Amino acid sequence: MSQATNQSWGGRFSEPTDAFVARFTASVTFDQRLASQDIQGSIAHATMLARVGVLTDDERDAIINGLNEVQGEIERGEFNWSVPLEDVHMNIEARLTEKIGITGKKLHTGRSRNDQVATDIRLFMRDEIDVIEVELKRLREGMIELADREAETIMPGFTHLQTAQPVTFGHHILAWQEMLARDHERLLDCRKRVNVMPLGAAALAGTTYPIDRHVTAELLGFDRPSENSLDAVSDRDFAIEFTSFASILLMHLSRMSEELVLWTSAQFNFIDLPDRFCTGSSIMPQKKNPDVPELVRGKTGRVYGHLMSLLTLMKSQPLAYNKDNQEDKEPLFDAVDTVRDCLKAFADMVPAIEPKKASMYEAARRGFSTATDLADYLVRKGVAFRDAHEIVGQSVAYGLKTEKDLSEMSLDELKQFSATIEQDVFEVLTLEGSVAARNHIGGTAPNQVRAAAQRAREALSALKAGA
Amino acid sequence: MSQATNQSWGGRFSEPTDAFVARFTASVTFDQRLASQDIQGSIAHATMLARVGVLTDDERDAIINGLNEVQGEIERGEFNWSVPLEDVHMNIEARLTEKIGITGKKLHTGRSRNDQVATDIRLFMRDEIDVIEVELKRLREGMIELADREAETIMPGFTHLQTAQPVTFGHHILAWQEMLARDHERLLDCRKRVNVMPLGAAALAGTTYPIDRHVTAELLGFDRPSENSLDAVSDRDFAIEFTSFASILLMHLSRMSEELVLWTSAQFNFIDLPDRFCTGSSIMPQKKNPDVPELVRGKTGRVYGHLMSLLTLMKSQPLAYNKDNQEDKEPLFDAVDTVRDCLKAFADMVPAIEPKKASMYEAARRGFSTATDLADYLVRKGVAFRDAHEIVGQSVAYGLKTEKDLSEMSLDELKQFSATIEQDVFEVLTLEGSVAARNHIGGTAPNQVRAAAQRAREALSALKAGA
Amino acid sequence: MSQATNQSWGGRFSEPTDAFVARFTASVTFDQRLASQDIQGSIAHATMLARVGVLTDDERDAIINGLNEVQGEIERGEFNWSVPLEDVHMNIEARLTEKIGITGKKLHTGRSRNDQVATDIRLFMRDEIDVIEVELKRLREGMIELADREAETIMPGFTHLQTAQPVTFGHHILAWQEMLARDHERLLDCRKRVNVMPLGAAALAGTTYPIDRHVTAELLGFDRPSENSLDAVSDRDFAIEFTSFASILLMHLSRMSEELVLWTSAQFNFIDLPDRFCTGSSIMPQKKNPDVPELVRGKTGRVYGHLMSLLTLMKSQPLAYNKDNQEDKEPLFDAVDTVRDCLKAFADMVPAIEPKKASMYEAARRGFSTATDLADYLVRKGVAFRDAHEIVGQSVAYGLKTEKDLSEMSLDELKQFSATIEQDVFEVLTLEGSVAARNHIGGTAPNQVRAAAQRAREALSALKAGA
Amino acid sequence: MSQATNQSWGGRFSEPTDAFVARFTASVTFDQRLASQDIQGSIAHATMLARVGVLTDDERDAIINGLNEVQGEIERGEFNWSVPLEDVHMNIEARLTEKIGITGKKLHTGRSRNDQVATDIRLFMRDEIDVIEVELKRLREGMIELADREAETIMPGFTHLQTAQPVTFGHHILAWQEMLARDHERLLDCRKRVNVMPLGAAALAGTTYPIDRHVTAELLGFDRPSENSLDAVSDRDFAIEFTSFASILLMHLSRMSEELVLWTSAQFNFIDLPDRFCTGSSIMPQKKNPDVPELVRGKTGRVYGHLMSLLTLMKSQPLAYNKDNQEDKEPLFDAVDTVRDCLKAFADMVPAIEPKKASMYEAARRGFSTATDLADYLVRKGVAFRDAHEIVGQSVAYGLKTEKDLSEMSLDELKQFSATIEQDVFEVLTLEGSVAARNHIGGTAPNQVRAAAQRAREALSALKAGA
Repeated sequence: MSQATNQSWGGRFSEPTDAFVARFTASVTFDQRLASQDIQGSIAHATMLARVGVLTDDERDAIINGLNEVQGEIERGEFNWSVPLEDVHMNIEARLTEKIGITGKKLHTGRSRNDQVATDIRLFMRDEIDVIEVELKRLREGMIELADREAETIMPGFTHLQTAQPVTFGHHILAWQEMLARDHERLLDCRKRVNVMPLGAAALAGTTYPIDRHVTAELLGFDRPSENSLDAVSDRDFAIEFTSFASILLMHLSRMSEELVLWTSAQFNFIDLPDRFCTGSSIMPQKKNPDVPELVRGKTGRVYGHLMSLLTLMKSQPLAYNKDNQEDKEPLFDAVDTVRDCLKAFADMVPAIEPKKASMYEAARRGFSTATDLADYLVRKGVAFRDAHEIVGQSVAYGLKTEKDLSEMSLDELKQFSATIEQDVFEVLTLEGSVAARNHIGGTAPNQVRAAAQRAREALSALKAGA
Repeated sequence: MSQATNQSWGGRFSEPTDAFVARFTASVTFDQRLASQDIQGSIAHATMLARVGVLTDDERDAIINGLNEVQGEIERGEFNWSVPLEDVHMNIEARLTEKIGITGKKLHTGRSRNDQVATDIRLFMRDEIDVIEVELKRLREGMIELADREAETIMPGFTHLQTAQPVTFGHHILAWQEMLARDHERLLDCRKRVNVMPLGAAALAGTTYPIDRHVTAELLGFDRPSENSLDAVSDRDFAIEFTSFASILLMHLSRMSEELVLWTSAQFNFIDLPDRFCTGSSIMPQKKNPDVPELVRGKTGRVYGHLMSLLTLMKSQPLAYNKDNQEDKEPLFDAVDTVRDCLKAFADMVPAIEPKKASMYEAARRGFSTATDLADYLVRKGVAFRDAHEIVGQSVAYGLKTEKDLSEMSLDELKQFSATIEQDVFEVLTLEGSVAARNHIGGTAPNQVRAAAQRAREALSALKAGA
Repeated sequence: MSQATNQSWGGRFSEPTDAFVARFTASVTFDQRLASQDIQGSIAHATMLARVGVLTDDERDAIINGLNEVQGEIERGEFNWSVPLEDVHMNIEARLTEKIGITGKKLHTGRSRNDQVATDIRLFMRDEIDVIEVELKRLREGMIELADREAETIMPGFTHLQTAQPVTFGHHILAWQEMLARDHERLLDCRKRVNVMPLGAAALAGTTYPIDRHVTAELLGFDRPSENSLDAVSDRDFAIEFTSFASILLMHLSRMSEELVLWTSAQFNFIDLPDRFCTGSSIMPQKKNPDVPELVRGKTGRVYGHLMSLLTLMKSQPLAYNKDNQEDKEPLFDAVDTVRDCLKAFADMVPAIEPKKASMYEAARRGFSTATDLADYLVRKGVAFRDAHEIVGQSVAYGLKTEKDLSEMSLDELKQFSATIEQDVFEVLTLEGSVAARNHIGGTAPNQVRAAAQRAREALSALKAGA
Repeated sequence: MSQATNQSWGGRFSEPTDAFVARFTASVTFDQRLASQDIQGSIAHATMLARVGVLTDDERDAIINGLNEVQGEIERGEFNWSVPLEDVHMNIEARLTEKIGITGKKLHTGRSRNDQVATDIRLFMRDEIDVIEVELKRLREGMIELADREAETIMPGFTHLQTAQPVTFGHHILAWQEMLARDHERLLDCRKRVNVMPLGAAALAGTTYPIDRHVTAELLGFDRPSENSLDAVSDRDFAIEFTSFASILLMHLSRMSEELVLWTSAQFNFIDLPDRFCTGSSIMPQKKNPDVPELVRGKTGRVYGHLMSLLTLMKSQPLAYNKDNQEDKEPLFDAVDTVRDCLKAFADMVPAIEPKKASMYEAARRGFSTATDLADYLVRKGVAFRDAHEIVGQSVAYGLKTEKDLSEMSLDELKQFSATIEQDVFEVLTLEGSVAARNHIGGTAPNQVRAAAQRAREALSALKAGA
């Protein structure tokens, strides 16, 4: 990086910045990522300034052409970023002024770096949210189709990681999909609050130039200009809200990852993950490790950390802009990248999950998973629920001792615990009967799973149309 | 607390729970707070069960009457909570069965504690959100009126806690109000996702009884039943989302508190807080400490902590319900109480803030706060902005040396730095001229502040009507 | 609670505190937990004041007798705590003055609530650390004995939750014990920094009375008086450091809990937990849920949250005491209780874990767990490690296809992959051979496990003697 | 980066890793920072392997020479890092094997990447801790000397940011130094637990080769080999403990920063910071912003976030190594860099702080800062402390009304509130008298400050010698 210095605030100062301090306080190493949005914002600003007569049309054109050239240099990797110029804004402005001379300096009329950077980040976040939404939709679609395909595949449902009741694999996958549906809503709610324009707040109080903020907002696709200049330069809620969305999303992915890791273990043996989502061991040749889910689970901490970082950053800051806020970018950039990559990895991986149906079925068959069905059977025969629960508890205790599942006991054995039990009990003790009987909205019955998949498909599709 | 034991799951077990373990795993000491919602949910469940024919009308009536009696006992402090009965659900059911006999046991037909507790918390959160919203509106109204009253009161605006440009006190207070307007939106967004009914998910897979979840949802005022039973019993997103809302809100209150503490210091001396929001010192008789803002600032940590607690709790949990989730309640309850109390304290305090106008004005007059106005003046005279910036920087350096503010320099002194400066410069160097000149949406000009207050008033009022 | 008011700072104030504000800012509802330490500190302070001549011996005796009476009232539950008196300090002093008259007011000579509360919390933390250490030792002892008993019990060792290599159960339990050994060190390191006396710092600057802080420190068992009064009243490092210790400890317990939950699942079936550490289900009669480990795992979030709460609390606080610090107590108290209870639960539970040896052995036998041993065998025959790794990888791929473990293949089958393999290969493919061969410090060989248990026993015992 | 692939675990796999997955799961982009430690560890490992006869001396020499060449390539920026080779370990080994052929593959005998990476990070952390300690000592020394110089400089001491009592600036700076003294202890406590060697744990269970871990530990300067192989590969306590140290340190720096920002404000005007630690504004030419303290304050969030990230990462991970742990490096690296840079910035800046003594003195003179001294005076005349407090409270109320400080009132005015007051009261109402009177260990009297500086100097110097 070059050593051109920032002359934008030097007049009042009597000694040069210490070299270490210059590096310590500079942001250009990371905020150059905002270059494209910075130029986009500057072009809109220059256009508005010409519209209200602060710039001539020639000045505007010179600025816009110059900025487009700078954009090209950056895209081609020819731009020489300078640490002494501190940040992306001064780097670009300095280069513009090199190119077009004194007119370049007029671009900064009626704005400040405080409102400029706030605008750049919001443009950036809007772009990234839209990319993230594409991956999120793709993942949801993959889940819906997987669930539909596996609407009849029986597996054990767990509570406390103990076999509880049989469910279908499709139903389980739709539980994942519901988590993401809420994340999707939160993402769109966040986008509304991102898409508000700070530009025009200038340093903190607005500007004395006759700017027209509605024009700039429209040029940049913002819903509206912000209502208060002090708030506009100091607000980082949208960064926290996005990171909060990201934390809940990663929490969801960590739960799915945990299950994928369990299911690929020799002990569960419920699914196979294609080799391309796994890696091996440098010492143990037999290993096929579920690296992608493990890594996603690990990245949860990263995003939680960024949320805590941003919340801490803003705590107790007096208005308006403080240098502390320079620290908002790195956690936010990393949260964006992590979310996008984890969603992409999952959107690729989920449709490729191969359930081992026989193994799942066998696991469900064991573990007294239809005990609740026996209790319900007793209740339908007139036994009070709490009493039925006792009867089944005793049957299970007997089964544990004799190593028999409920469906493996004879009628006589079952009758020890309640005279109410008859031959028809064996119908409710099958797995297929058990899942089919949970036949209401939200239940695990195969036809309910298919109906739920269809509703999810339509909701997602409606969202596509409307977004 | 009494020692009645939970017979709801005892059948399978061969030894009694250890007394310490019973206390360690019981939740009734805190979840009794959900008693009213638990009874409300049970009444709706019983009503639905009768509607679909699982209960007779007489059974339903016995249950409802019994529950109403239990509610009365709880309200009158006559209820005997028992730790061995574990939780609020079993305590109430046990008491109901004492009162109405065997029919009481039928209430649990077609549900489980897993969907029951999820329903209770959502009902509780919906109630609390509505209470919180009332305080939030009251605080916003207080700010809007204060801002309107103080639309012309001049104070220094700060960046980096250095005097930057003059602003009006009303403008500053509206910056606070904008923060709360976003919090308000987030609260209502969260409420949408709270108001979905888990009941009917039973333990995890739904139930074999012919329940009608739409009926129960309608009876309880829920927007809809949840879509997936596994998700319904394991989802705690709404708790995290609320705590995330609360964290951002408290962050905002911490910023306002920081400013209130600064402003009441001898050094700033910008405002007076009524004695009732302050306390004194046991050793220093002259002290009047801004306790309320300090304490609210301190409570920020508490709410951030609860957010981190809930995010950690849910990380990597496999479906469906795990005992871990019992830990969701205490952080959530405390976040609710903290938010409500801090908003109440602020809603009482903010309208009582007394600005010390002369002191604010004097502070704005010092510190070269109109330096930007001088730069803008030069630009309007044709000087490039960056050059104007240099000229003003030199004037400020001179002012620091000679201890003169810009408005205190003679025309000759000013002309040293630029021949462009004329007599009319002194118009732009007044504070009133400076604030009035920032006359665009979001700017600090008094008429803009009044217009912004009016827009805020209308937005809030529209929200009231629509909510 | 009564409504007696705090007259300790009223002189300067013109209006009474608002009732809500009084409740909002009072701490007595939680800081009454420090009553015993508060009285202990006051007795030492009075003793020192008499020693240096600020109190007469009669005054000292009156104060001490009065405080002892107050202590008795508190212990017998007869003390009437008052919210308007704000905190534990004023409540006790007010009661003392009721009892002994004007002399009671002299107790506060040369101190302030700022140094008083800092002293109380440190005394409290020292007491609690000592209680916690007892439970921690008991748990470590239980682990060491369990490990020694199970030094030869073979189970699969996992990486990525995939079967990796056979280990012994004793070795696994000693891995847990090593985690706790580090926690133990951190607890004692923290105790050093807790045991420093703030008393004498007064409000913030020290006092003009001729106090002797060394005397008070000795009376209270502190290692030394603090070095700086401003720091003494504002320092809460010890609270954060303890909560950091607690967070790492709970993280460790969450890992052990995760394994206990896995091991009690039907899929792993590695251990049995006695019924008294488990609970059942209200709807699924067959369930035996590992509630204690699940709940401990859930409590991890709680403690992480408290750490974040305290770190946030202290961020950016200017010196010296600020009201924010009142918020230090509740997270700290809850962290203390959580640590103590979780350690107690584990110390009771761990020795009662019953390994299901046959099931563990069978799991280790499957999954190609001796693949590394085959690779090492090849290397000893002169094959380069990376080549050996390839050969074994191909054998495993063949085994997966033919559903044979390595030890189940014939010599001819094995020779397909390397001509170097001879009859003696079958010795290294047994589980007993595999674990016995890892025979170095830290390795899983049974004799190493027993030696490690013995070293751990001695280290713990040395610690006991030295503490 | 090149596309050479990792053949270390490919044998078992039937399809190549997906390109995105390869990038997503690779760590070489960040773990190449461990290259030097990786080579250092490999050289020691090879040396040990030759010592026990697993390698010949020629093999060892070839490996060591090869590794030294690779080190040179890396240092000269000539090394071609490859993403498909996944991590720093495989990149270096692949290059070594290119250079020296088949012997290069033998280096991995008796170890795994699991123990290798754990060793690398610990070597790295030990190095970085030593660098950090140098900066921490430099900062502490700077503070001690500044405090000694300013032992008599009077400023107001604050509680609740309200003027409380006069203190000396030296005393205030020593309060900062005490915070750092505790941080220093924590850093050294952490170093003890860092300096333990995992190498030899291999994948998780130890190795069948006849390694001598004591030899390797000695070669690498570790205090001892780790006790348990499962623990050795999974333990990341040291990373969390370091980040916890870093969080408390940054919390301290945030408090100092907050005060520096306050003190450089026009309102406080207590100090001047040299221009080189400040920057200006692009729009407001008069600004001199305290950028360095603001930025350090902002970086607090970053480090808190990393702590939360690592705690979350490790929560609920079963033994032994999981891929999640790859996520430990980036937060740890960034915490290390942040701590080092912030300490360096402060160590440069603190000695350059220029107190504005007249301004500090004047601030202390106002605000009734000697009110406590008046109360103490009354007590010495026989008035009970609580009564004296009342009397002074009334004097202050009178002073507020008449705008007179206590020392500005006449004897008659003072006597209104207590007849006990005599002419000698004016001695205790001076600032010099007030600070000199707090003359005990920890008090603000100038001679106590100088003595405390001397003790701090000696303690630090003893630490230097002993470390």
